[in-house]
Amino acid sequence: MPSDIEIARAATLKPIAQVAEKLGIPDEALHNYGKHIAKLDHGFIGSLEGRPEGKLILVTAISPTPAGEGKTTTTVGLGDALNRIGQKTMICLREPSLGPCFGMKGGAAGGGKAQVVPMEQINLHFTGDFHAITSAHSLAAALIDNHVYWANELNIDVRRIFWRRVVDMNDRALRAITQSLGGVANGFPREDGFDITVASEVMAVFCLAKNLEDLEERLGRIVIAESRDRKLITLKDVKATGAMTVLLKDALQPNLVQTLEGNPALIHGGPFANIAHGCNSVIATRAGLRLADYTVTEAGFGADLGAEKFLDIKCRQAGISPSAVVIVATVRALKMHGGVNKKDLGSENIDALEKGFANLARHVTNVRNFGLPVVVAVNHFYADTDAEHARLKALCSEKLGVEAITCKHWADGGAGAEQLAHAVVRLAEGGAQPIAYAYETEAKLTDKIRAIATKLYGAADVQIESKAAQKLAAFEKEGYGNLPICMAKTQYSFSTDPALIGAPDGHVVAVRDVRLSAGAGFVVAICGEIMTMPGLPRVPAADTIRLDANGQIDGLF
Amino acid sequence: MPSDIEIARAATLKPIAQVAEKLGIPDEALHNYGKHIAKLDHGFIGSLEGRPEGKLILVTAISPTPAGEGKTTTTVGLGDALNRIGQKTMICLREPSLGPCFGMKGGAAGGGKAQVVPMEQINLHFTGDFHAITSAHSLAAALIDNHVYWANELNIDVRRIFWRRVVDMNDRALRAITQSLGGVANGFPREDGFDITVASEVMAVFCLAKNLEDLEERLGRIVIAESRDRKLITLKDVKATGAMTVLLKDALQPNLVQTLEGNPALIHGGPFANIAHGCNSVIATRAGLRLADYTVTEAGFGADLGAEKFLDIKCRQAGISPSAVVIVATVRALKMHGGVNKKDLGSENIDALEKGFANLARHVTNVRNFGLPVVVAVNHFYADTDAEHARLKALCSEKLGVEAITCKHWADGGAGAEQLAHAVVRLAEGGAQPIAYAYETEAKLTDKIRAIATKLYGAADVQIESKAAQKLAAFEKEGYGNLPICMAKTQYSFSTDPALIGAPDGHVVAVRDVRLSAGAGFVVAICGEIMTMPGLPRVPAADTIRLDANGQIDGLF
Repeated sequence: MPSDIEIARAATLKPIAQVAEKLGIPDEALHNYGKHIAKLDHGFIGSLEGRPEGKLILVTAISPTPAGEGKTTTTVGLGDALNRIGQKTMICLREPSLGPCFGMKGGAAGGGKAQVVPMEQINLHFTGDFHAITSAHSLAAALIDNHVYWANELNIDVRRIFWRRVVDMNDRALRAITQSLGGVANGFPREDGFDITVASEVMAVFCLAKNLEDLEERLGRIVIAESRDRKLITLKDVKATGAMTVLLKDALQPNLVQTLEGNPALIHGGPFANIAHGCNSVIATRAGLRLADYTVTEAGFGADLGAEKFLDIKCRQAGISPSAVVIVATVRALKMHGGVNKKDLGSENIDALEKGFANLARHVTNVRNFGLPVVVAVNHFYADTDAEHARLKALCSEKLGVEAITCKHWADGGAGAEQLAHAVVRLAEGGAQPIAYAYETEAKLTDKIRAIATKLYGAADVQIESKAAQKLAAFEKEGYGNLPICMAKTQYSFSTDPALIGAPDGHVVAVRDVRLSAGAGFVVAICGEIMTMPGLPRVPAADTIRLDANGQIDGLF
Repeated sequence: MPSDIEIARAATLKPIAQVAEKLGIPDEALHNYGKHIAKLDHGFIGSLEGRPEGKLILVTAISPTPAGEGKTTTTVGLGDALNRIGQKTMICLREPSLGPCFGMKGGAAGGGKAQVVPMEQINLHFTGDFHAITSAHSLAAALIDNHVYWANELNIDVRRIFWRRVVDMNDRALRAITQSLGGVANGFPREDGFDITVASEVMAVFCLAKNLEDLEERLGRIVIAESRDRKLITLKDVKATGAMTVLLKDALQPNLVQTLEGNPALIHGGPFANIAHGCNSVIATRAGLRLADYTVTEAGFGADLGAEKFLDIKCRQAGISPSAVVIVATVRALKMHGGVNKKDLGSENIDALEKGFANLARHVTNVRNFGLPVVVAVNHFYADTDAEHARLKALCSEKLGVEAITCKHWADGGAGAEQLAHAVVRLAEGGAQPIAYAYETEAKLTDKIRAIATKLYGAADVQIESKAAQKLAAFEKEGYGNLPICMAKTQYSFSTDPALIGAPDGHVVAVRDVRLSAGAGFVVAICGEIMTMPGLPRVPAADTIRLDANGQIDGLF
């Protein structure tokens, strides 16, 4: 069986202009990056304003397990399938981060015959968007310390600078540092630390901005510190936003690539799915909607985090709404939710499947509670048995009245997801649906957190630690009370305990801390430990990554 | 009078394929980055091997002053002029660094009508080469600390890790840090610091590597630490080089752009000119030589640093040699070397010019001592008087027997440097000249330093501090004694005191420290304080950089 990278390399790619042509994107709108990648020009994107919008399809998933679910793969496969059945379709995905590739093997561009290409470029530097975000973030950091160094007119309290630094690398040594050491010429010593670039608020802002102007305004709203007299200080106050926007100007143009079947895909932006909202850029999604009849996109992690944030944050801010939602599940993963160990997944186990089905059921119910039509895509794996697929479909039909469709896009490409595509077209007939948000923005911040926890997570209650409660009260006092909530909790469970798989009930969601992301436009509620700078494993993938004798990359995937 | 940026924006750029065609570069060899930038494919570069090589012309300068000399401008102007008089010519320049643009206003892509374009992209992210170098450097840093974190099989002494971190930003707060704080999960606390990316040894290696294979080998030779038992540890020992090479693969392809007159220019690599050798990549220079009849290139700072390193390090390593050398001088700068203040440069001052001429004279003599034919390009400024130009030419002719030619490429483009171009063609008739290096590689390291200081700087002696002397002895013992020397001293004087302008004699060059750059293949001799991480000024350029209403960048230049 060929590997993902072997399949990707064996493919003959079309010139990107030919891919663009499928959706009527003219040559002049393309800024080429090599032969198979192009950015869509700002002017062209602007010219789409006012066009009627096609239908938005969200692909989300059950709670992730080590078995793998294949959300990106399904997004790509469904996009190819829709194109196959004659629907002009755009796929919108997040950009992968470069740093983590050198830790664990494996990329993030789909798999099997449902991939976006060119895979190596997409997974490494791509068009430099993340480098631009790192540069913009680093510039802001340098300007803040430079302000303090010279005269500190804003009276910034160096103990209360919230703006950490970022690098797109898994580097645990930088998590906590002291800086500005070495004497007078190097500034005022203080504590600091680095996060990975995808955790930067610049990334979240980049993905929620409507255009360059909105980008600059949002950057200006980012709160970076407090003064000695406890006033909030923003990036606008340190005059960083004009130069940051200049650094981000080209990056903000969405990147067009193709699937293995030559269909168009926009890959743009990639914020963390815990401390941020985990979706590709609004600019790319909007461009898709205006260019295609169908735009298929995904959201990070399971539906409790990904779909909830997609709807309550991204759709609400951007004024868009899906026509249908696909929830990806696998027999393997549901068996894990039913208690099976990873090593035993090769054997049929209907009992475990029935038990683990509870996880899928809750996600389906949750999405329906948002007022949206749902279909379940059962992503087929080799070891799955027909009996397992039949049982899962029956459970979906009997217990939930939802259609579940076996998909084989990994093995067969778009042809393997045609049935899913037809179901999506039927389901989306009604067009964009009004979203029944999990909470109204006017509610108190604590009530919004409680609404998410009780309505979506099955929690009995929410416990907000006193420090967090004080900060929430302060945010409301400062005028940030109407922001939506961005939950940062483990993706492995509906609860805050990753070991509580399946569909736990009656648990308490403890909010340890909260953070203001005023530029992105949300308040982050942190439940448990959230890692914003990964480390490298004992034997990192980097050890064996190299160019082979033909100049091809070995060991990356 | 229009500004550089206004001139650049008013220009109509040719499609880059049309520029490439001038030197017979086929379409298939181009990886486009937008419409006006392309990388030359590795395969194409490789296919040039064995082609006869054209003539190499080095543009260097007198010791820099705040008056400005215009070395890059003259390089571009001469290239345009050579093309105008029918010589197929390639220009090879260094890539500017992004970070410093946000400190002081101004870019590094020539000026007036002698510029390379597109100016904004070249000065900001360009094709991402420096981002790739930053990533590769950062990966190595993460792998070193990760090695220590897990089991430290190499027994790395955390007090003796020489590999600092880098960022392409002027950020004094990061010059000296302590890292790996915060407990067991974050590693072993140690001192560290950041340099700006151009100071990375990866950058020097990138610019001296012959090809990808040589790049990986050189990276492997970089010494990054000592073990507890004082053994040298390399990047190869921490298995970093394969993955770093993968990160640098695309970046190592030289970038083709055009001059305002539509002539080809390769802009590739940009190492520091103090702790490194300050020249564009060997790959670009070699490609130029194989594609064009003339390749015009520049070296950093004045000829004492730039030309010396170009010849003793780059040419020696690459096995290339110039056919002629152009030394750029201005009346203004020579008057400053003669003691005039910057504010008084507007008035004619023959006396000061005659006095300051000593600086030019020594540079001319130095280059001739390398066995190379020389012409002086007097870069014309508006306030210069005819009498000053006439006197300078007479001095050159009478005292040195060297031709000096007034050039007006800044105002007139290539047409303004035609006379210089003809002189260069005459001078280069003999083809590549054998270089009389300042020292032989077999000499002792201290003797090489002494040779440079006494032969080129006019120093009476060299004083090597005891710590530095011990390190030099250790380098020789470890087998690095045959490496050339890379002098890191002030560019403003032949001496190590920036205030000693003109042509000081009898001074003592004090070597404070030495560093091994085993991958680049030189030993750095540090004289005085060398800043490897600049800071931002009180009012940084970033404060006023922004996009204007037309989406154009304001405040950058």
